Parts: sequence; structure tokens; C-alpha cells
Amino acid sequence: MDGENFIFGRNAVTEALTSGREINKILIADGSREGSIKKISALAKDAGIIFEFVNRAKLDKISGGANHQGVIAFAAAVEYSTVEEILNFASEKNEPPFLIVLDELEDPHNFGAILRTADAVGVHGVIIPKRRSVSLNSTVAKTSAGAIEYVKVARVTNIAQTLKKLREEYFLKIIGSDAGAEKNFTDADLSGGIVAVIGSEGKGMRRLTRENCDLPVKIPMVGKINSLNASVAGAVLMYEIFRQRQLLKS
Amino acid sequence: MDGENFIFGRNAVTEALTSGREINKILIADGSREGSIKKISALAKDAGIIFEFVNRAKLDKISGGANHQGVIAFAAAVEYSTVEEILNFASEKNEPPFLIVLDELEDPHNFGAILRTADAVGVHGVIIPKRRSVSLNSTVAKTSAGAIEYVKVARVTNIAQTLKKLREEYFLKIIGSDAGAEKNFTDADLSGGIVAVIGSEGKGMRRLTRENCDLPVKIPMVGKINSLNASVAGAVLMYEIFRQRQLLKS
Repeated sequence: MDGENFIFGRNAVTEALTSGREINKILIADGSREGSIKKISALAKDAGIIFEFVNRAKLDKISGGANHQGVIAFAAAVEYSTVEEILNFASEKNEPPFLIVLDELEDPHNFGAILRTADAVGVHGVIIPKRRSVSLNSTVAKTSAGAIEYVKVARVTNIAQTLKKLREEYFLKIIGSDAGAEKNFTDADLSGGIVAVIGSEGKGMRRLTRENCDLPVKIPMVGKINSLNASVAGAVLMYEIFRQRQLLKS
Repeated sequence: MDGENFIFGRNAVTEALTSGREINKILIADGSREGSIKKISALAKDAGIIFEFVNRAKLDKISGGANHQGVIAFAAAVEYSTVEEILNFASEKNEPPFLIVLDELEDPHNFGAILRTADAVGVHGVIIPKRRSVSLNSTVAKTSAGAIEYVKVARVTNIAQTLKKLREEYFLKIIGSDAGAEKNFTDADLSGGIVAVIGSEGKGMRRLTRENCDLPVKIPMVGKINSLNASVAGAVLMYEIFRQRQLLKS
């Protein structure tokens, strides 16, 4: 059994079922009678997916203490996309590309929260490096509240080269949050094809990533703590990009 | 020993020390030689606080598996403020009050992340209900990256009555995120004295809370998932309020 292939929690399992994801089996805690659990068993029955009632201790053991809310699905691991697929997806929707790059993000909760926000604002895809990065695991799936099923994620060997290509061949604007930047993110022109880079929790953007960033922007802060949570910084940037894109539409 | 009084992690312990918080003792994992650990022991020495090197297993046991990064402080619990103290604090700073109400928030990670953002945007204080709410514990302290030391938190018996009083006696505008609202949060006038209500993770605002909300605002979403993470929704609202306040200043 591969820990990467479990989906914990009612929302996450429901999303996996409704999105048609390939699921091998679902385990439900004995005595679960919530509406959301009934919905899950009905969806599973319709889709011909096996589900079993087991005692809660078994679910606790599989989840390793994570909050499974009485339901665990054994699923095929989410497939990664490619950068080309992400760009094609934007093109099919007739939208200027809106991409996120996570530069060595380590915390699966942050990754999940970023995928959830990315889904909300219409991001076409998220790019992560193959090395030194969190990957698509069960914690990400749960924290994403199901968004992992809908947001394309591509892994690349070299983030700096990928950014260079996106800039030079696809003419995308590369922005990144940088505490030392002069321009506030709300004063920057974030319209058009764009890639927003979100740095790692501790260190921010790496030097080579920063060198490929056209537009460093500052998220202003007036308090005593000198950094934001990575998923919060990402959300604040994503919503400003989204706002500027919506304004151009209307 | 009271679990509420531990502070885990290098950033959180450093912040507790630099903010002058009352600390009884600090435990450091044998063999820790990181710069941040050296800084912690230097700060502790200056402040006359006892620190001991212990084996890592002891720290693991105390932290119950949470990531302590080799350092745990035993501290006096953070003291709660009162709503009056929060309003006085805004008044001392000659600023229109900027308050956050968390309506039965349950997840300590969300609470910590909200405190961290609240510190960044100059929120004067956060109000939580005494019952059915996460309280100021060690997970909140760690997730807040130290902001728990700086942001005032008041507990009240009745959120609806508190909101009514803030509206009728202090003339604050009460806004709340509501998926059914007509107005986008970026189109609303969020200037002046304001209270932003953030609902619980699962259920949003309660009916009585909603009835005391002058200005329901929508955070637009175009994806497949129908809600945002509570700390993300809070951050997006807080940054828009902050932006509008900063514009008025300049």
C-alpha cells in the first residue's frame, strides 16, 4: 500500500468521486451516518466502486493520525501534467495563461491550500520542481479540499530554465513576491499572461529564480513579524491577479 | 505541566524571547548547532532564563509529534485581552478600529495563520467566542510564527451581542464573507472603523452572526471547489481592507 494514494476526509473523497477519478476501494467507519457519508456510498455504488465498513481504529491506523472524518479512499495517484498541457489548457479556454510556480515549497498543507485557492481564481496550472519540493501526496489532497483533482500540476527539473522559456518563448510576465521590492503588488500591472512565483517557507525565492523574475512585487506589512505564511502570500497575490483579470473582462 | 503553555519551534521561541514574554525554561535538543538555536540560547542567557540541553526524544514526547525544530519553551500562557482594551489600543494609535471576529473557528493552524496575517496588516485585535472555538494553544503559537505575542485576542460569551454593541455604540461597520452576497469584496467601501467576520471552516457565519453583519461581501470564485480555506479567506479580506486604509493615508 502506497501512502501517496490515499484520500482522507469527506470533502476530498466526494470530490474524487464526482470528478471521476479512478478509485480502487473506499473504507467507511462503522456507524457513520452523516449525510455526506451517505452521499459517498451512493456515489460509490453508482460508479461500481467497492466500499466496506470497517472499525474506526483501522482508519486511524491507515491515516497515521490524520483526520479522516470516517472515510478513506484508495485511489490511483493523481497524474502530473506537463507545462505544455497547462499552456494548451489556457489556450483552449482562450485566456491569457495564469500559472503559479512553487519554488521549493516544503509544507504539504501550504501546497494543498495553494491548490484550493488556485482552483478558485482560475489558475491554469501549478509548476513545482522535481527535487526539494513537496509532491502530490495524501496530505496535499486533503488540505486542497478536492482541488488536487482539478488543478493541473507539472514537475520540472529546472525552475530557472522553465521560467526563462516561459518569458522568452511564451512572453509571459514573471512576478514574484520579494520583501525588498519597491512596488506594492496592488500597484503593479498584473494583466495578461502571467506566472506568479511563490518562494519556499523559510528562504523565499532562490537567486536563480529571482533573476528570472521580471517584476518583483512587495506585499506590504506593518507588523512585528517579517513574513507571511506561504499559502497566504500566494492567496493574496492570486486574488489581486484575478481581480485585475476580471476588471479587464467587464 | 499544561500543554497550552509550550512554545515549539525556532521562530516562535525567538519571538517569545524578543517580545519579553515570561518564560520559565527552555529545552534544546542535544547537538543543535544552528545559528537560530545559538541566538535563542544567547537571548535566554541575557534574560536570565534557564535553558537545558536534553535528548531529542524528550522534546518529541513533550511536543506529541509536532515539529519542534529542536527547541521548546515553557512559557506563561498568553493573556487574553478585552474588547475594550482592543478599542483603546486603536484609539491610542489614532486609527479607526480594525477588528477581526472568528465565528467558531476550529482549526488551530487557521487561527495561527490568521494571527500572522492580522499582525501584518495592523489589525488591532481579534475576538473569539469562549465556547466552541479554538483557543490560544501551542499549535496556534507555532503556526502564528510569533504573532500570538503581538496581536491582542479577546474572548467573549456572545458574538452576536458583541457585534451589536460594536455597531450601535462604536459605529463600526461589520463585514462578513458570504458566498451568497451580491457585492464583491473589492467593490465594497471597507474604509473607516471595521470588523471583519470570518466564519467557521465548515459552516461559515452562524445565523445570528449574519444578522449583525451590515455588509455581506462575496469573495468571487470561478473553480470547482465552493469554498476557500478560512485563513485564506481571512487574508484576502484583511489585505483588501488594509489596501483601502493605506490608500486613504497616502
